[in-house]
Order: sequence, then structure tokens, then C-alpha cells
Amino acid sequence: MHPKRTALILLLLAGVAAFAQTADSIVLPPAGTSGGKPLMSVLKERKSERAFSAQKLSPQVLSNLLWAAFGVNRPDGRRTAPSAFNRQEIAIYATLPDGVYLYDAKANRLDKIISGDLRAATGTEAFVAEAYLNLVYVADYAQMPDTSDAEKVLYSAADTGFIGQNVYLYCASEGLATVIRAGIDRDALGKTLKLGPAQKITLAQSVGYPKPSN
Amino acid sequence: MHPKRTALILLLLAGVAAFAQTADSIVLPPAGTSGGKPLMSVLKERKSERAFSAQKLSPQVLSNLLWAAFGVNRPDGRRTAPSAFNRQEIAIYATLPDGVYLYDAKANRLDKIISGDLRAATGTEAFVAEAYLNLVYVADYAQMPDTSDAEKVLYSAADTGFIGQNVYLYCASEGLATVIRAGIDRDALGKTLKLGPAQKITLAQSVGYPKPSN
Repeated sequence: MHPKRTALILLLLAGVAAFAQTADSIVLPPAGTSGGKPLMSVLKERKSERAFSAQKLSPQVLSNLLWAAFGVNRPDGRRTAPSAFNRQEIAIYATLPDGVYLYDAKANRLDKIISGDLRAATGTEAFVAEAYLNLVYVADYAQMPDTSDAEKVLYSAADTGFIGQNVYLYCASEGLATVIRAGIDRDALGKTLKLGPAQKITLAQSVGYPKPSN
Repeated sequence: MHPKRTALILLLLAGVAAFAQTADSIVLPPAGTSGGKPLMSVLKERKSERAFSAQKLSPQVLSNLLWAAFGVNRPDGRRTAPSAFNRQEIAIYATLPDGVYLYDAKANRLDKIISGDLRAATGTEAFVAEAYLNLVYVADYAQMPDTSDAEKVLYSAADTGFIGQNVYLYCASEGLATVIRAGIDRDALGKTLKLGPAQKITLAQSVGYPKPSN
């Protein structure tokens, strides 16, 4: 084959690969930004649950949940949860039965970064493999300049807490089960998620419909 | 005076002093554990505000706010925010114009620990002196055994974040202004609050009615 034609075909194949990656994204339906139960009732119901059914979360529920967690709630790009100096350094990796997705709050999209069921890798407890969704919170220390190491830990953990509590309250409002957890093999999961040296896993949170009691 | 009588009088005086300390407590009215705006609308309104009016928060608002933050929401003593291993290691110091109070969630009471207006001491920014209420979050590391130093920072910061987000959402629901902040002279404030060596200030949060715009 003519070298130029080969090059052209390779370019086309690269284009197809790039498109395939894009096609793996889940464009989320617009999040519902009104409704839900009254705040104080939701706080009354707030709790940790560790038994999950296999029931799927719909794209609408995923969209609402992620927007509640750390969605854009103002035209200037600010979010439903605060962050130190508005650095928005926490990324949410959403681990679903078919792969791991990165939440793009601005585009309201989940971008697949790894295929396959990696839910069990997100925690040391058995139930994590059963929860339909496991959120992994990852702080990007590169987005935190002029900050001491101790402050990086403090700020990124607090910023994770703000987001995690939003997830708790969304779950309480919608009858979903959730638990935030620190039982993570961070080194192994960091490798699995192909994290860079400045990306630090803070906590993870399992979400799903509660397992019906016997 | 007869020594025994002196001893009796001293005992009585000590009793009066103890009573006076108890009398400085604010017994909060029962918190409203229903009502508020719908959760998603509250998340839409969630924001940080740094300009406060001098308007007082009523005992009912204080009660609701503190219950939302980290109140007891179940008969077994569990709370509106999670904590690592349910250690509930975060104490809330409520700094009001007349003194600093420790929130007793179980008794639904604010116990005065220091008299006087110490609001300005809770942060390095000028607005903190104007906010009617400044919450100071203090982690008790003594309640976190078998935990590495790095984990203590991570857990107590995340546990503060859960509580702080509850305060954000309560404020969004009730039209109050709030901002969580790390700008604190921790050594000086620790001395002012008479904290022990195992008590670590994580973050602080100013709360009040918003300053009317000009």
C-alpha cells in the first residue's frame, strides 16, 4: 500500500478510536434542581447503610445525585459544595458495573476512563461490590499551590466531606442507601484508576437502592 | 469563725458557683425536625456569603441550626452527620456576642464556657466580628485511638465537612448567610478557648442574617 494512504488510514483509525472514547461518555439528562423532600425531614432521615440491592440507578437519578453532590449551581461555575479558595480540586470517579467514569460537572457528562466492573476495587468491605455505584473522591494536589502538605490533607478532606454530605442528603431524600468510607487500598486503587502522583484518594462512598430486609 | 462552719460556707459558695455556671446554659427549644425548603432547591441556593447584619438569631433558629449541623437524629444517639467509626469527635463551640458556648447535642443545650464577645478571635477576616454566630469546630484526637496522625487529620476534616455542609444547607433554606473558613490563628484561638493538647481546631464557620445590599 502507498505510504501516504497507510498514513491516512492510520489517521482515520485514530479518529475512530477517539470517537469511540467519546461515544463511551454518558450524556446525563439535565438534573432536577428543584423538588426533593423538605431539608429538615431529610436531615432526620440521614444515616449510613451498608446493604445494597443490585437495582440500577437510572440516568436521571445519576444526574440528580451527581449534581446534588458537586454540580454547578451558578452561572459563574460555582458548585453545590464549597472548596478551599474555590479550587474545586475534588474529582468524582463514578464506578459503575460497566466501568469507571469521571464526572464532568460543567458538561453534565460521565466520561468513561476504564471499562469493566471495578466496583470491588473501590473498598475493602464486601458490600462495595454490590452497590450499583461507588463514588471515589480524588483530590488533585496540583490544583492547591501555596498550600502546606498538612493543609492539603485538611482542605481536601473537608472539601470531600461537603460533597459526601450532599450525597447523604440526596440519598435520604430519594430512599437510597449510602455510606461514606475510608476502608480503601489507596495504593492499589490509585494504580487501577491510573492516578498521577499529585492525585490523592480521600474517601469513597457507596450508593444504591437498599437491600430489602428479610 | 469555727473552721467547720468556714468549710460549710465554702462548700455552699462552691455550690452557688456551680449553679451559676449551669445557669449560664441556654436550654434550647426543641428543634424543628421537619419542614424547610425542598432539598434540591436548597442545593441550588447553596453559596458562601461574607457580609453579615447584626441581627440576632432567635433561640429557635439556633436550635434548628445546631440540630441540622450535628444534632441527634436517632434514638441510639446517632447524628445528622456521619463520623469516622461513629466516634463523634467533633465538638461545636458556638461564639455569640455574650460568650462562647459548647453545644451539647444530647441535652439540646448550649453551655457557656467563656463570657465576653470573642467573635473577632475566631478568624483572621474582619467580617467574623460582625456575624452574630461563629461556629468553631474542634476535633478531640483523644477520641480517635488506633488512628495514625495523618488519618486523624483526614477523618476530623472530613467529619467537619459533613457538619459544615449541613450548616450551609440550613442557611440556604432559611435565608441566612454563612461561610466556612480556614483563616484562623489556631494557636491563639486554642488558648482563648482553653483547649487541651488533644483538641484541634479544624475549621470555623460564620453564620448570620445577610447584610442588606446598598
